[in-house]
This record gives sequence, C-alpha cells and structure tokens, in this order.
Amino acid sequence: MIDIDQFLEHEKEIINRALINNLPAVEHSVVNEAMRYSLNAGGKRLRPILTIAAAKTLGSEDESIIEVACALEYIHTYSLIHDDLPAMDDSKLRRGKPTCHCVYDDAVAILAGDGLLTLAFETVAKYGSRAGYEKKAIGILAELTDAAGVNGMIGGQTLDLAAEGNNLSLDEIDKISLMKTGVLLRAAVVCGGIAADASESQLKALSAFALNIGSAFQVVDDLLDYESTSEEMGKPAGADQVRAKATYPAVLGLAGARKRAEALYEQALTALDDLGRPTEILREIAKKLVYRTK
Amino acid sequence: MIDIDQFLEHEKEIINRALINNLPAVEHSVVNEAMRYSLNAGGKRLRPILTIAAAKTLGSEDESIIEVACALEYIHTYSLIHDDLPAMDDSKLRRGKPTCHCVYDDAVAILAGDGLLTLAFETVAKYGSRAGYEKKAIGILAELTDAAGVNGMIGGQTLDLAAEGNNLSLDEIDKISLMKTGVLLRAAVVCGGIAADASESQLKALSAFALNIGSAFQVVDDLLDYESTSEEMGKPAGADQVRAKATYPAVLGLAGARKRAEALYEQALTALDDLGRPTEILREIAKKLVYRTK
Repeated sequence: MIDIDQFLEHEKEIINRALINNLPAVEHSVVNEAMRYSLNAGGKRLRPILTIAAAKTLGSEDESIIEVACALEYIHTYSLIHDDLPAMDDSKLRRGKPTCHCVYDDAVAILAGDGLLTLAFETVAKYGSRAGYEKKAIGILAELTDAAGVNGMIGGQTLDLAAEGNNLSLDEIDKISLMKTGVLLRAAVVCGGIAADASESQLKALSAFALNIGSAFQVVDDLLDYESTSEEMGKPAGADQVRAKATYPAVLGLAGARKRAEALYEQALTALDDLGRPTEILREIAKKLVYRTK
Repeated sequence: MIDIDQFLEHEKEIINRALINNLPAVEHSVVNEAMRYSLNAGGKRLRPILTIAAAKTLGSEDESIIEVACALEYIHTYSLIHDDLPAMDDSKLRRGKPTCHCVYDDAVAILAGDGLLTLAFETVAKYGSRAGYEKKAIGILAELTDAAGVNGMIGGQTLDLAAEGNNLSLDEIDKISLMKTGVLLRAAVVCGGIAADASESQLKALSAFALNIGSAFQVVDDLLDYESTSEEMGKPAGADQVRAKATYPAVLGLAGARKRAEALYEQALTALDDLGRPTEILREIAKKLVYRTK
C-alpha cells in the first residue's frame, strides 16, 4: 500500500521546482516577478499531481511528464489571477495571501495571467519537441485548449459572472462547476493518459473518473467554504454567499451536498474499474479530495 | 507581375471568413460576441497575409495554412483587446471603432482576449491533428508562444507601460518595437515557412526579411501617427505624443525616421535574395507596408 501523503508531498516538491525552472529567464521584469509570486503562493498542485498520477497508473515512468503537469498548473494559476481581478470577482486574498493585482497592479496581473497562459502552451511545445512526442503533444494541446477555452473555463467564468445575485437551479450550478473546474481536472487526468499512450477505452475511463471527482471536488469546496472560517480557508469565509452566488449547500442543504459528494466519489471509483490497471494512487487521491477538511 | 492590391483583397476575404468560421460555436455567449466584434473590427490582416505569402513563396499551395494564419490574427487581436484596457493603455477607439471594453465591459474584454489567445493555440492543434503535420505544428507552436510570451509581446507591453513619460534612447525604442510588434511579424512569416517545409537557411532568410519589415512597419506607424488626423487613423491623432511615449520621429526627426524606414526596407529585400525562390509577393507586401499612407 502506498503512503499517499508521502506521495503527494514528494510530487508537490518536484512540481514546485519545475514550475519555477520552466519560467522563461527575463531579467528585471515585474511581470515575471508577478508570475513567480502567484506560482509560489501555495496550492495543492492538484492538477499536475493528477497528470503525473494518471501517467504512473498506466505504467509510464517517463519523466518528461513534468512538462505536461506544469502546463496544467500554469493554466490554473492564470485563471486564478484573472478571476481575482477587480473587473471580475474582485478578490483580495487567495490561499491566505494578497492576490496578484493587490501586490502589483491590474495591468501587471493581466499580463502575468496572459504570460502564464502562453507559457503553458510553450511548455507543451517543449514537451512535443522530442522525437516521437509530436503527436501526443498535439493531442495534449487539443485537450488543454478545449478545457481553457470558451466552451470550458472562460465560458464557465462568463456564466459565473452573469449568474451573480441570481438563484440558480442545480443543473445551472452543475454546468458552471463543470466548465470552471471540471473540464481542467478532466484534462489533467486525460493528458496524463495521453502522455502514457493510453488506449481509447482507458482514456474514456480516465475521463469518467476525472469528471466525477471534479464534480465531487466542487461540492466539497462549497461545503468547506460554507463551514469554514476566514483563517482556515485563507479567503473570506462564506465569500460566495456574501456575493449571493448559488452553491451546492444552498441548493441541496449541507447533508444533501455531503451525500452528493460521496455518490460522485463512488462513481469515480467505479469508472477506474475499466482501466485494467492497479489504481491505488488515483483512488487514494480521490479519497483525499472528497474527505479533506481544507 | 502580380496585382498586389487584388492579391491582398482576395486573401483578406478568405482570412476574414476563416477567422469567424474557426470561432467555437457557443450560443448566447457575450464573450463569444465580444471576440467576434473585435475580429470584425477591421484591420489589414497583415500577419495572416504574411503567413500565407511566405508559404506561397516557398511553393506551397496547401490550403490548411489558413489555420496557421488565423492563429496569428487571433494572437494579434487578443493583444489589442488587452492593451486597450483601462488598466493598460486605456484606449477608447481602435480602427475607428469603440474598443472591446467600451462596447462590453472590462471583464468581458479580459475574457475575450483570453479566449482569442486560447483559440489561437486550439487552431494550431487543429492544424497539427492531420497525419504528417504534427511536427510542423509543434514548430509553429514554439514560434507563436515565444513571440507572444514574456520575452516577446508581453515583455514589450511591460516595457512600454514602464516607459510611459520617460525619454527613451533609440536602442530602447527599438527593443520595445521589436518585442511588441517585430517578433509576431517574424513569427507570421516564419510559421508560413515552417508550414511550407522551408529549409533552415530559408527560415533564416525569412526571419531576417520579417524582422526588417517589422522594424520598418513600426517606424512608419509612428510617422503616420505623428502626421495624421484623428479621422484618418481611426484613433486619436498623436496619441502616443500626448501620453509622452517616445517614438521614432521624436528621436530621429521626421526625415531621419523616413530614411530609417527606407533603409530597413532595403535590408528586407536583400534578405529575400537568400531564399532561392521568386519573391515578388513578399517584396510587393514590403513595399506596401513601407510606402503606405494609412
């Protein structure tokens, strides 16, 4: 049996180093400094860990997967920087630290986000520059751009901004959650699969697993936001309620939301059965996500 | 001899159609509408035309080049939308029309820019999804991300914002001009070359050509801005002077700037000699750029 905490800690260290090492060298650039600041501002590194875990699950030990993993985290971090801007969610704290535009200014934060989004695809190009990796890199690029684009994260943020102050149905909350969070988590797992030469049926199983844990993750996020205090979460507690955003606990109640997270978790595990591989790492990560307390 | 005006008009029509056809289908999305608005707001389509012209010059008639060409224009349009934001250059007019954030709002404009940047790379993924195109697509991706990133356009905008109100040396103006404009024009030409299976020495010649016309283009732009009226340019005349930005005419004088543009033009033509191909289209485009009046 693996020690999941040790695994996560070990991979996180490797990822944190690679995230900074893959930054382009630019001297005295405030935008580079802002990119580095936001990358260093913590986080679970869930997406890159899922990419690495998916590849390992399929038996790949190819270390160049770290570049694909970094691309995922760059996209995630870019989206946080832009979402936090005053013109968007106007968030002053993120992971207990001042957000990028508060430390620098709006212009630098916009450019830092643009820089990280571009860097994500630059890192994919680097991955794909190896002989024999071109086709996999193109497949990964297609997954990432689909997840990040207007049918994915950008579309989700658009719906989220439009929804502010409205009562949403469960279907509408599901849709926003899928587009804002689910599609990138799915891409993280699927890209790990592509890098490890997964078969079509394996990619399908990975995709189903990821969509279910992505949904569970968002429900748990809402639950933690509802229950937590500012100190614990590193962002103003109940921020979503204050801004009258519809959340899972608001629609389903606390017990209902908890039950839903657990059902999604079970479905995620069931999806893994189709993989035809030992899936302990992915199962342990899923458990961590659903039964986390912060 | 080709009729360059007819060529440009014909290619522009093809590009305009493809730019809209390659937009992802999303119903009732204000961000998609904003992306479409900015794409339809005119422009010479210089970058995609250069991509197509470079490929044609090398003898390629492969129509899938249009996807690479679109990627260039998506990146260009994204950069205009973000540069125009109140937090950046705060421009209210662009090509005679209200800028994206004025028609919509800052949040939508930020997301529309993000969407176009992502779409650029999605279009490269589409190009590279054809059998045998993967390696070329990865080369194109590397060129585009390098040009768009912190060592290119993002770095240029960073320097430009920091330079506001300062007196700059000619070297500093050159550097900003190269990063903001030159590197993407270079990428436009080089990506056309890569798509047409150019040799290393041909890519080198194309790169030298593009860097020289890129520099000439920026000098001419400054000259036109200096000389023009608001009505003719579609943006407030002398906007750069009002904001005390250093420009070529300010440093070199009008005659000196004009002379420099012509010298760069000559160097661009000389670079083409190394191509070993008939280069009439590229020469005619270069002439159009340097001797334009708007």
